[in-house]
Amino acid sequence: MARQLIECVPNFSEGRRQDVIEAIVAPFKNRKGCYLFDYRADQDHNRLVVSLVGEPQAICDALLEASRVAVENIDLNTHQGAHPRLGAVDVIPFTPVKNITMDECVELAHSFAKRFNDALDVPVFFYEAASVRPDRTRLEQIRKGQYEALKELVKTDPSRQPDVGTKDRLHPTAGGTVIGARKFLVAYNVNLNTTNKAIADAIAKRVRASGGGFACVKGMGVDLKEKGLVQVSMNIVDYEKTAMYRTLEFIRMEAARWGVTVNGTEVYGMIPAGALLDSAAYYMQIDDFQNEQVLELKLLELMGEQEA
Amino acid sequence: MARQLIECVPNFSEGRRQDVIEAIVAPFKNRKGCYLFDYRADQDHNRLVVSLVGEPQAICDALLEASRVAVENIDLNTHQGAHPRLGAVDVIPFTPVKNITMDECVELAHSFAKRFNDALDVPVFFYEAASVRPDRTRLEQIRKGQYEALKELVKTDPSRQPDVGTKDRLHPTAGGTVIGARKFLVAYNVNLNTTNKAIADAIAKRVRASGGGFACVKGMGVDLKEKGLVQVSMNIVDYEKTAMYRTLEFIRMEAARWGVTVNGTEVYGMIPAGALLDSAAYYMQIDDFQNEQVLELKLLELMGEQEA
Repeated sequence: MARQLIECVPNFSEGRRQDVIEAIVAPFKNRKGCYLFDYRADQDHNRLVVSLVGEPQAICDALLEASRVAVENIDLNTHQGAHPRLGAVDVIPFTPVKNITMDECVELAHSFAKRFNDALDVPVFFYEAASVRPDRTRLEQIRKGQYEALKELVKTDPSRQPDVGTKDRLHPTAGGTVIGARKFLVAYNVNLNTTNKAIADAIAKRVRASGGGFACVKGMGVDLKEKGLVQVSMNIVDYEKTAMYRTLEFIRMEAARWGVTVNGTEVYGMIPAGALLDSAAYYMQIDDFQNEQVLELKLLELMGEQEA
Repeated sequence: MARQLIECVPNFSEGRRQDVIEAIVAPFKNRKGCYLFDYRADQDHNRLVVSLVGEPQAICDALLEASRVAVENIDLNTHQGAHPRLGAVDVIPFTPVKNITMDECVELAHSFAKRFNDALDVPVFFYEAASVRPDRTRLEQIRKGQYEALKELVKTDPSRQPDVGTKDRLHPTAGGTVIGARKFLVAYNVNLNTTNKAIADAIAKRVRASGGGFACVKGMGVDLKEKGLVQVSMNIVDYEKTAMYRTLEFIRMEAARWGVTVNGTEVYGMIPAGALLDSAAYYMQIDDFQNEQVLELKLLELMGEQEA
């Protein structure tokens, strides 16, 4: 069987104590089948964001070890930070990368949540594709009021109670954890040759789903004062449905309404090869291009087969 | 040390006997560090082309085993085929892919040639970057007259004698082998909305180095009768110097001279990710894009480090 690969970006509520940060990250290092892409601790947010890619089993094993360190060392009753949070292990999203479906990632989220709760006694809330309640799918809905409000609400409000674990109480120090499955997020920003932020705002509204634009796009206007430009900042939540080039050409077309041109664009963070190859094929008018013609992608596939 | 990766596309003079073809290819299969991308036998050419990517040592070990099979089973005195050839193992090019320089690939070609000749007694001619004679670098120069002419010429003509092994005779059945180092060839074709082949010929002449065009481009016009189109067929011999998008936009500009437009393009065979990402970044106006932002490229790097 071809090797399955997922992406996982767990968020932990610790961005200040370096020894705790390193202890949380340690299980992700030098583990067969688990590749630590990056980890960033933010002091103001008091939060640690870890980027992983690898095999589901290896990542889940490492996640459990890392979560144990976080649960034992972080007390939400004293934790303070600028970023909203619900627990020591705040969010764990599973994202399909290769040879695995979204349904399988949902199953993975559900089975890992049970294992996580059995081991650590921290209740779990499911979100996005892994949600088990149609009225509760978004992270913001679940985390509303944060730890402080939710630890009281779960006692009485069924709509705020966890999906896995004891219903009417959070963990006394580690709070709750949100676990789910979602597609890969592409962060793509388009900078415009103007200082008029109202133009970026107007275009952002038109390009995003909520404004009648592309179904898989979230967007907002940003003022890049130091550059003397404005930006349409986007999250493309399903790049296979809404290709990057379509958003760029749409923004170019709308900007022309004010005689404004595109200064440049920015891909923020990681991006799957397919997202860029798709746009390259459009602009270069490449017929019948297969991603496995790309040497590195084919190599990755063969390496996966050889090891499996 | 980061894992070194090369591409190697050895050509063997056997395209008809299936048992011999499979015996030649067998050493490339299921070998750690050697990845068999593809192999194609052509009956008319009576030739086998194998595509490999992997670690230098693993590929060289496999090449020696495969070459022994070819040398023991192919007799150039009875071999016939449409493609020019000099030996049972006709050509072996080494191409840098990752963490290895062209100079290192030249050294690899030279050291492998010695090992190859010691083991099989087949003389070796060096070509392209591995050439040791400034007057003899191109494959066509070395192979001119093919096996039949060269087996006589080596007896008397120093300019046609091999670089490694006995100077004045080829192997009595396996002939000689051309070994070298070269950059990755990108085969990129641009189809034009016209049936007038003279236009493709004229543009091909302008785009290629020999006609005063791009230094790293070879090109010719091709009639695609069944499609009702003509094609500018290119080999880009150094895609890092001459980016694909420049050749496309150049051809588009020249074609406009006749009011002709680009119907589509074709990437033939394998292509390194960097070649397409470079063009994607141009068309999408992406500032400061790093190839390691691509999930699969970063993963490949981390996998190489973990195994090293």
